[in-house]
Amino acid sequence: MDLKGKFNTVFFDADDTLWENEQFFRNAEAQFAQLLADYTSPEGVQQMLWQKQEDNIPLFGYGSKTYMIGMTDAAMDLCGGNLPEHIYYGVKKIITELAFHEFEFIEGVKETLEALQGRYKLIVATKGDLTEQMHKYRISGLADYFHHCEVMENKDEKNYLELAEKNDMDPEQILMIGNSVKSDIAPVVNIGGTAIHTPHEVVWVHEMMDMPQSDRIIEVQDIKEILKYLL
Amino acid sequence: MDLKGKFNTVFFDADDTLWENEQFFRNAEAQFAQLLADYTSPEGVQQMLWQKQEDNIPLFGYGSKTYMIGMTDAAMDLCGGNLPEHIYYGVKKIITELAFHEFEFIEGVKETLEALQGRYKLIVATKGDLTEQMHKYRISGLADYFHHCEVMENKDEKNYLELAEKNDMDPEQILMIGNSVKSDIAPVVNIGGTAIHTPHEVVWVHEMMDMPQSDRIIEVQDIKEILKYLL
Repeated sequence: MDLKGKFNTVFFDADDTLWENEQFFRNAEAQFAQLLADYTSPEGVQQMLWQKQEDNIPLFGYGSKTYMIGMTDAAMDLCGGNLPEHIYYGVKKIITELAFHEFEFIEGVKETLEALQGRYKLIVATKGDLTEQMHKYRISGLADYFHHCEVMENKDEKNYLELAEKNDMDPEQILMIGNSVKSDIAPVVNIGGTAIHTPHEVVWVHEMMDMPQSDRIIEVQDIKEILKYLL
Repeated sequence: MDLKGKFNTVFFDADDTLWENEQFFRNAEAQFAQLLADYTSPEGVQQMLWQKQEDNIPLFGYGSKTYMIGMTDAAMDLCGGNLPEHIYYGVKKIITELAFHEFEFIEGVKETLEALQGRYKLIVATKGDLTEQMHKYRISGLADYFHHCEVMENKDEKNYLELAEKNDMDPEQILMIGNSVKSDIAPVVNIGGTAIHTPHEVVWVHEMMDMPQSDRIIEVQDIKEILKYLL
């Protein structure tokens, strides 16, 4: 499929597409299990946290603050209904370090953006916590390449239709690049857009989904490979 | 000052400009004081919560989840470093009711928007928690009147310059309507924009500020009065 000349704007997912994310969450979970090692096994902590995340995301949305609420809920249960200060502030420290300190680019991102800059209007389209995502966008220096950053509540078909409307585009004009089949690929092609899948080795359990069948999906091995379709 | 024909786009603040907000937060604080009545006085609770909010906002941003973290921090201290389940889940209940249930329009908003619709591009420009603000925007039905809703991290001069850029406008083309001198009026006029102040009887302590001197500020008594400047 040739995309040259077909799109004016390119949307990029951020977490695990532009910057590393999931590995830091896995690391935070390991720290959390360590914090609660006196109460139960790492598997027990993990299972409890996963369940609390499932309960909280529909209410509070994605991102580190919801993750903190899930960890606090889990810790409260595991501590038997009385949460000691050192556990609570331990959770808060894990979250602030996760969300507001750790930052690492995915390999090849900067070269790819440099090559596209000036030829396309580039927009970050990420979901998650507003404060956390804008913090990462700012410290990354990505604002030099992108027109702006949209932090979306979620990434379902309705959200992508809104994204198109917000940017005065038709859904068919959306070209989305991202690592999550569920969030970046399937909903975009379902509303008539085109998507390039840049896989990442670590996939969040909440994001797992089979690749849909569509001639508007391109699969690449790494982000630099998108250039051969776009330039 | 005559604004007719000078602006294509009008930005509206949401909290206490389009919908009631502060009164629900005051009510939540009263519930929180009640929850901790066995530990200290309402004034003691309030003072502690205020301090914790001051500490958390720079780190976690605005909105109900940060407010929940502040309440949990305060409750942990007031309970002497061991937080009982019923207090923690009491806090969580206060927050979910506050953020995801209570909704009430400011008087005159719907008539005002009906009169402006089709004559201006209308954009909501609010700060706070993304999930919470988008929830309110959706349940309000305001999407019928507005082009879109921008949830901003904060509302300082830098954020308004970004807002202009994101919407492909010059800062001088911004016309902002809102109740907060600190968030809606001062930063907008400082970057060359124009602002209409629609006062609200309840002002959050973090938002208090004297009105700056500028011939690009209009003060009205209620939101309907903006029509006489715009139509």
